[in-house]
Amino acid sequence: MAALKATIEMESPRRFLAHGYTGATVPIHFPREGEARTGPGPMELMLLGVGGCTAIDIVDILEKERETVEAFRIEMESERAPEPPTVFTRIHMKYVLRGDLKEANVKRAIDLSMEKYCGASIMLKRGGVDVTTSYVIEKPASGP
Amino acid sequence: MAALKATIEMESPRRFLAHGYTGATVPIHFPREGEARTGPGPMELMLLGVGGCTAIDIVDILEKERETVEAFRIEMESERAPEPPTVFTRIHMKYVLRGDLKEANVKRAIDLSMEKYCGASIMLKRGGVDVTTSYVIEKPASGP
Repeated sequence: MAALKATIEMESPRRFLAHGYTGATVPIHFPREGEARTGPGPMELMLLGVGGCTAIDIVDILEKERETVEAFRIEMESERAPEPPTVFTRIHMKYVLRGDLKEANVKRAIDLSMEKYCGASIMLKRGGVDVTTSYVIEKPASGP
Repeated sequence: MAALKATIEMESPRRFLAHGYTGATVPIHFPREGEARTGPGPMELMLLGVGGCTAIDIVDILEKERETVEAFRIEMESERAPEPPTVFTRIHMKYVLRGDLKEANVKRAIDLSMEKYCGASIMLKRGGVDVTTSYVIEKPASGP
């Protein structure tokens, strides 16, 4: 695989513009106390990357199983170490799906993402982060 | 430390809106082939988180040493595993600083970030990613 290039450019000492390898740009901000925030923090980006990665997996796997996912979200809860390096110590992801979905397929999709496909969470798990999951399936509202 | 909450919400099967624990929102997109991209991918966010984290460290440490950083960027190069999970296998970060900076301070700032402060890269290193660094100091243009 060719090298994936990105740059992080300083705009001011606590604000950076990140240019990713797909061409996407993201501001990164670490405001001083009292200063208004104008972008996510870097560790926050890592967390959102983990959630986004497994979200894409789950919806994709369920689509391939011809399941119709009407609504989908992940509620994430995480904790960081109190002293530097302030790594994540645990991340819990609660998947909330709406649709007339087979529970076995949902469970399998989550397992496949966690064990095989989601590079973001697998990297963190290998690095000692306690990543756990749960799920809730909400049945769709009945028709009129 | 209180739990840090975030949510990932599906907008369409390949596009999600991520709400981080600081209140920041980031779109995440994994377009189908041929579809226009409207946001970074999740692994890209992880990479930008690593770069942002160490960028903030370096500029902060140098400021505390009363160094004036006139310009700063990180040129990142990374590779991912060819097969799932497509984790990062290596990340190289070339720090490019401009200013009348003491090289020993720059080197020390990078070492401190990599070994002690940058939780993002330390998590990935613990997870087996080969993270390496280099730096270039550009002297400021002379006055008129």
